[in-house]
Amino acid sequence: MLTIDETHDPALLSWVESANDHADFPIQNLPLGVVSHLGGPGRGAIAIGEMVLDLAALAASGLLEGDAQAAAEAGCGESLNALLALGHLPRRALRRAVSALLAAGSAHRDAIEGLLIPMAQTRPQLPARIGDYSDFYVGIHHAQGVGALFRPDQPLLPNYKHIPIGYHGRASTVRTSDTPLVRPHGQIRDAATGAVRYEPTARLDFELELGLWIARGNPLGSPIPLARAHDHMAGLTLLNDWSARDIQAWEYQPLGPFQSKSFLTTVSPWIVTCEALAPFRLAQPARPQGDPRLLPYLFDEADQAHGALGLELRATLASAAMRRAGTAPLELCRTQARAMYWTLGQMVAHHTANGCALESGDLLGTGTISGAEAGTRGSLLEITRGGADPLALPGGETRTFLEDGDEVALHGRFVAPGRRAIGFGACRGIVMPPALV
Amino acid sequence: MLTIDETHDPALLSWVESANDHADFPIQNLPLGVVSHLGGPGRGAIAIGEMVLDLAALAASGLLEGDAQAAAEAGCGESLNALLALGHLPRRALRRAVSALLAAGSAHRDAIEGLLIPMAQTRPQLPARIGDYSDFYVGIHHAQGVGALFRPDQPLLPNYKHIPIGYHGRASTVRTSDTPLVRPHGQIRDAATGAVRYEPTARLDFELELGLWIARGNPLGSPIPLARAHDHMAGLTLLNDWSARDIQAWEYQPLGPFQSKSFLTTVSPWIVTCEALAPFRLAQPARPQGDPRLLPYLFDEADQAHGALGLELRATLASAAMRRAGTAPLELCRTQARAMYWTLGQMVAHHTANGCALESGDLLGTGTISGAEAGTRGSLLEITRGGADPLALPGGETRTFLEDGDEVALHGRFVAPGRRAIGFGACRGIVMPPALV
Repeated sequence: MLTIDETHDPALLSWVESANDHADFPIQNLPLGVVSHLGGPGRGAIAIGEMVLDLAALAASGLLEGDAQAAAEAGCGESLNALLALGHLPRRALRRAVSALLAAGSAHRDAIEGLLIPMAQTRPQLPARIGDYSDFYVGIHHAQGVGALFRPDQPLLPNYKHIPIGYHGRASTVRTSDTPLVRPHGQIRDAATGAVRYEPTARLDFELELGLWIARGNPLGSPIPLARAHDHMAGLTLLNDWSARDIQAWEYQPLGPFQSKSFLTTVSPWIVTCEALAPFRLAQPARPQGDPRLLPYLFDEADQAHGALGLELRATLASAAMRRAGTAPLELCRTQARAMYWTLGQMVAHHTANGCALESGDLLGTGTISGAEAGTRGSLLEITRGGADPLALPGGETRTFLEDGDEVALHGRFVAPGRRAIGFGACRGIVMPPALV
Repeated sequence: MLTIDETHDPALLSWVESANDHADFPIQNLPLGVVSHLGGPGRGAIAIGEMVLDLAALAASGLLEGDAQAAAEAGCGESLNALLALGHLPRRALRRAVSALLAAGSAHRDAIEGLLIPMAQTRPQLPARIGDYSDFYVGIHHAQGVGALFRPDQPLLPNYKHIPIGYHGRASTVRTSDTPLVRPHGQIRDAATGAVRYEPTARLDFELELGLWIARGNPLGSPIPLARAHDHMAGLTLLNDWSARDIQAWEYQPLGPFQSKSFLTTVSPWIVTCEALAPFRLAQPARPQGDPRLLPYLFDEADQAHGALGLELRATLASAAMRRAGTAPLELCRTQARAMYWTLGQMVAHHTANGCALESGDLLGTGTISGAEAGTRGSLLEITRGGADPLALPGGETRTFLEDGDEVALHGRFVAPGRRAIGFGACRGIVMPPALV
């Protein structure tokens, strides 16, 4: 899966002109997704610049063969679960075939041109039917920063450096970019008076995360060894784990977050495949001196050598007033995926270490990826220190937590020396006023 | 939904002889499920005594009409999600029609007899494709008993009497009765030495719960008011939330149980519908003096008047040695569903109070239903006080937690004065030795 081949050549150009200077979707990316065209049902597709290539049309074109044809056929439906279930070899064959068909100078340009749809005519759907969504907590600086606010006496719990801590999330409320976020109601305890009320959250937050889509699953009772974890990964998206901090503080003991997170989770709609991000693999940073040794099921040499990612992450905020005034969004944070204390492979190995079955199309969140320094923190809870340090917006507004009309966008950019950078596309949401209940 | 009609008549008999003295499935029950016949694909069915009535064959028989026909057609597939999504009116129409067809003296006995399959020739499947599984914590005596072991200083947390506490569980590992339970591995911290190891759990436990199947879902952003919650419930099953207490103790802070619960959850395969259990509704016991007032979204007069259930619950244990010796299983506990501090309706209302979308076929667990006295506690953690008080088995064995070869079975019996009692069928599992990993 870490093969770097001609599809990654940074000099490769596409005859799809919009791809060649596209920030996210040059021909080196070719992410997988599902789009609705002109209001029709979802259909599997590959993004290339400002266009999408319809997989059903491609499968019917006669231009593919073998594994690539099988992958395109499996990707024809309203979700990519069947394609993901095939694992990485057919996915890679499809990537290589599509790269050749879309490359400048392809003899099949005329045939393929008719299979492209302008992305502007489509609406992105979830790429897969999500069976289960789990969320981890691999950002150690986030765990420390948030822990200090919830538990000043013990910010980082004793298990943190032993276990890739995770919990089950809500699959039914994962949506793609641009789904409006209606400010949720919930039970909130007034810290001053102790009164408990059911009311709209006053501490609405974002969380900057990555989402990992599962390719092949594992049978109940059969853990996935870390050395094989990459065979079970399909690719990545951006993930915003919207959170209501006041609901969370009151509800989270003893069973963890529930209503504070389950109202909406936003993902970028395109799966940047493990094949596409092969050139951006990095060695996992060495564990700090004094950290506990990894248990054998969480240690693998290849995972340590290639388990991290050269991936810059950012979050931006634009208030309604800023958008009206034409002011550029404010950068809330800029961080690096290298800040993950645990690798994606360790998440998969731990998740299945008790025999738990993962299924194709399952989604695993990383948890908030914050750095150690100011300007690298991936949630307002950390940025404003629980609301104690309001943030100044251009135009004179201030923020502790999100206000109605605020738009939060996540951005990611895979970078490596000598490589064409690639990205995810949009992962945005605007906060809407609470519903009348 | 609380209508009690001729289908509940305790004098009603069926021409299916095995139904008339059946502990669980007399004609007053008619639970919904999915079975595989002779290894074939799953098919929707209704249990009657020792037989099952095939819904596809029934839909094709020409004997139904209107809502009942629509319900049978929706129940023809490999899961009952489409039938559940129709809500309670078609479900009730199907119940009334099937009751009439199966009643002693029915003119259609000859036609229906050919549509029955001996239950012994079938294997039960999950009745629905579970989108999300959530587990609550409504057994206040369990919360108190377990809380005292995990947090002696504060057994019942301050939020308990305000919030129907719940958390997200793992949908992909819910299975029906008789699925073997392979003893899971996990990270375990040795309390004496502090050493952390990856090894098979030594504190394997059961939890006696009920599972609530969701009928119609709700759109994202639209809470289900408590007064309408019953329209969204399909029915109940027994649910064993197998738990590894050593894994749980080490992992559960700060995000809740994860690997300690996600290796297997066992349900009884038949959905005892809300229609079937209408005669067993009871007033919710009054909240103890001094408990906080219910917030308006958790209070409804009808829910208080009919939200509890006349339902006796039991768990039994038979070790391998006991089964070899032909010894009857030992009763581990006998408790009452009335011990639930929160109603099923309050669980649904709270789950959606933030706009979270429930979907047809979702499963909500109640959490362990323990009583206050010895003999009523629904987990070994409580029964043996965390292993401190071993339990004596017939034949001289003792137990703190489950040993390989142990079989745990849950039993439930709806009872009300002057009513024919009904039950769930089997919810069993045998502990198998850990896999080599």
